[in-house]
Amino acid sequence: MREVFIIGAGMTQFGRHLDRNLRDLGREACLNALRDAGITPKKVEAGYCGNALASALQGETGVGQNVFWEVGINEIPIVNTENACASGSTALREGWMAIAGGFYDLVIVAGVEKTVMPKGTMLNVGAAELETKLGDVFPGQFALIAQKHMERYGTTREQLAKVSVKNHFNGALNPYAQFQKQVTVEEVLNSPLVADPLTLFSCCPNSDGAAALILCSKRKAQKMKVRTVRIAASTLTSGTYDNQRDITGWEIEKRAAEGAYEMASLGPKDIDLVEVHDAFTISEIIHYEDLGLCAPGEGGRLIDEGATKLSGRIPVNPSGGLLAKGHPVGASGVAQVVEIVWQLRGEGGKRQIKNSRVGLAQIMGGYKEGDTRACTVHILIKD
Amino acid sequence: MREVFIIGAGMTQFGRHLDRNLRDLGREACLNALRDAGITPKKVEAGYCGNALASALQGETGVGQNVFWEVGINEIPIVNTENACASGSTALREGWMAIAGGFYDLVIVAGVEKTVMPKGTMLNVGAAELETKLGDVFPGQFALIAQKHMERYGTTREQLAKVSVKNHFNGALNPYAQFQKQVTVEEVLNSPLVADPLTLFSCCPNSDGAAALILCSKRKAQKMKVRTVRIAASTLTSGTYDNQRDITGWEIEKRAAEGAYEMASLGPKDIDLVEVHDAFTISEIIHYEDLGLCAPGEGGRLIDEGATKLSGRIPVNPSGGLLAKGHPVGASGVAQVVEIVWQLRGEGGKRQIKNSRVGLAQIMGGYKEGDTRACTVHILIKD
Repeated sequence: MREVFIIGAGMTQFGRHLDRNLRDLGREACLNALRDAGITPKKVEAGYCGNALASALQGETGVGQNVFWEVGINEIPIVNTENACASGSTALREGWMAIAGGFYDLVIVAGVEKTVMPKGTMLNVGAAELETKLGDVFPGQFALIAQKHMERYGTTREQLAKVSVKNHFNGALNPYAQFQKQVTVEEVLNSPLVADPLTLFSCCPNSDGAAALILCSKRKAQKMKVRTVRIAASTLTSGTYDNQRDITGWEIEKRAAEGAYEMASLGPKDIDLVEVHDAFTISEIIHYEDLGLCAPGEGGRLIDEGATKLSGRIPVNPSGGLLAKGHPVGASGVAQVVEIVWQLRGEGGKRQIKNSRVGLAQIMGGYKEGDTRACTVHILIKD
Repeated sequence: MREVFIIGAGMTQFGRHLDRNLRDLGREACLNALRDAGITPKKVEAGYCGNALASALQGETGVGQNVFWEVGINEIPIVNTENACASGSTALREGWMAIAGGFYDLVIVAGVEKTVMPKGTMLNVGAAELETKLGDVFPGQFALIAQKHMERYGTTREQLAKVSVKNHFNGALNPYAQFQKQVTVEEVLNSPLVADPLTLFSCCPNSDGAAALILCSKRKAQKMKVRTVRIAASTLTSGTYDNQRDITGWEIEKRAAEGAYEMASLGPKDIDLVEVHDAFTISEIIHYEDLGLCAPGEGGRLIDEGATKLSGRIPVNPSGGLLAKGHPVGASGVAQVVEIVWQLRGEGGKRQIKNSRVGLAQIMGGYKEGDTRACTVHILIKD
């Protein structure tokens, strides 16, 4: 398996882009990534694009072809991937495999999505599931998970709120974030209740946006003399038939993390910064535990200690995470890696983490009969 | 690059399956493929699933996870691919790369789709394109192509009709085909006009269905002592900025074919049977030319000579093709390869082609500003 490096990263600001379509957003992200890598479009040998909902929401298929075409990338193999919230990170993994497996030397990966809904309408994800029809939607599911975590481990509403406070603090330092405004614990707790104990500021928003990466083989990167971040691990897992399911942890994520640590020959203690899938505040608490940043049930304590702040022992979601940066579904997994690349290269601006060398990105997608459909973990190293 | 073999193939009958959902259709195809390979679901290391329209038509994402789950395949990496009509063949290509690149030894590939619309509604593909909104839909586009081919090369309505007659003849011998009834040249010419010169029987139907393949590394296949068909080539191309476009041929297809012939170290003369994307009769005529089965403009003559009949020099669409077998979009590319596997193994039943060793499958997807978005060519060899 050949080594794969990221040599370019770019994204749009996440947020409400009512006047821009998928191609327009994708173009900006891809141009930024190409410029960052210092390469022309014609050098790119294959393209992977993650998108989850364009077919349903915009009536558009072939999003990757449309977006890459806009920046002058055509003729080459282009693949569109869908794995719900992990659509973009799945595109990254397929792109990584394409180079690691020796098929190509230079690949573009994009994630593009528009999920901000017209006023008065609702984003109806998983509409085909019986459970969804019966009202078992995401906020409700994660509220139940939060309740169970609170009951079993004594996790508090204040601890949950602190996740949102931290991520909004980081988002306020990130010009690409949808929300660039700090919030207090009280504001989070007193924002409108969505599903007890989750309030409005405990839930990520719908967002529009795009992100892109340029991947490169070692051979090619050395010739080009570019700044590189190495992909030390890339794992993808799907759900399991586990009849003894424990809803306070995600078995799918534990397997993805274990696989990634093994692939990178590293452990949780070696990680300097992390981007996780904080669709809800409780999610981030559980990701701490599933990724091994702390023991099961200790997630609340970790946020209390401030360990995951920018200045903490193991900063999590320096970008602001989904809670503050926003969550354009298929773009989020790619944007997480964009943030890690920037941080490892010392380009984190006001939110720069000191002395970071190893970053980890985790995202998961879909929910089905009590289990998730896809989880990816990527470990990135600045050698 | 490691050699990759197909050790299992299965599909559902294509047609109107109003009482069956995607999971149900996918389950049948996957179980058939697993049984054919003689393996249990737990042996499968990764899964790829092609689907184009479930998000829009059924409100369902994660189709691969849902389908593979049904047959006891879970925990492993699962990727959903979308490339319009080439969605399934793109899944095949990603699965092939996963084994060829050394990541896995045993992979399942599926294509699943339901496009039969409720009575009184229309399948509105490409609804986001301005051209589509203005009425530039597939039958209209291909009618223009047919008109130009007739004008430039003297191709006749009777020659176009003969493609449909041949494919319906083959479909009548295929228990998996949507239409198992022969038609005459007169019936094709006199069927309702859709877009001049294309009549109803010149256009493929909307269909529901699924198809699946089991891919295996050489090392693993030798241990298992199974019947194998080798994937000698797999190419994927996207459209080009060609200002001198000639609508009587597809540049995207010529590149995909050239790449595949080069990869397999073979030429058109070495191919024993072919499955092509005959969404319209004119398409098959042009595919003859683009794949090098005859010279440009000679496609009409090839069908007149009977060369592409089951008993001809180079049989095309022994399965009945999209015109008779049906066209469940994301499943079609996988089903083409299922047919070739069956033929090469001598399991073609009443439509068996004699002495065939090398098969080629071609499919392309999407249409954008005068050019197609994705085209795949696979060459399969029974060693």
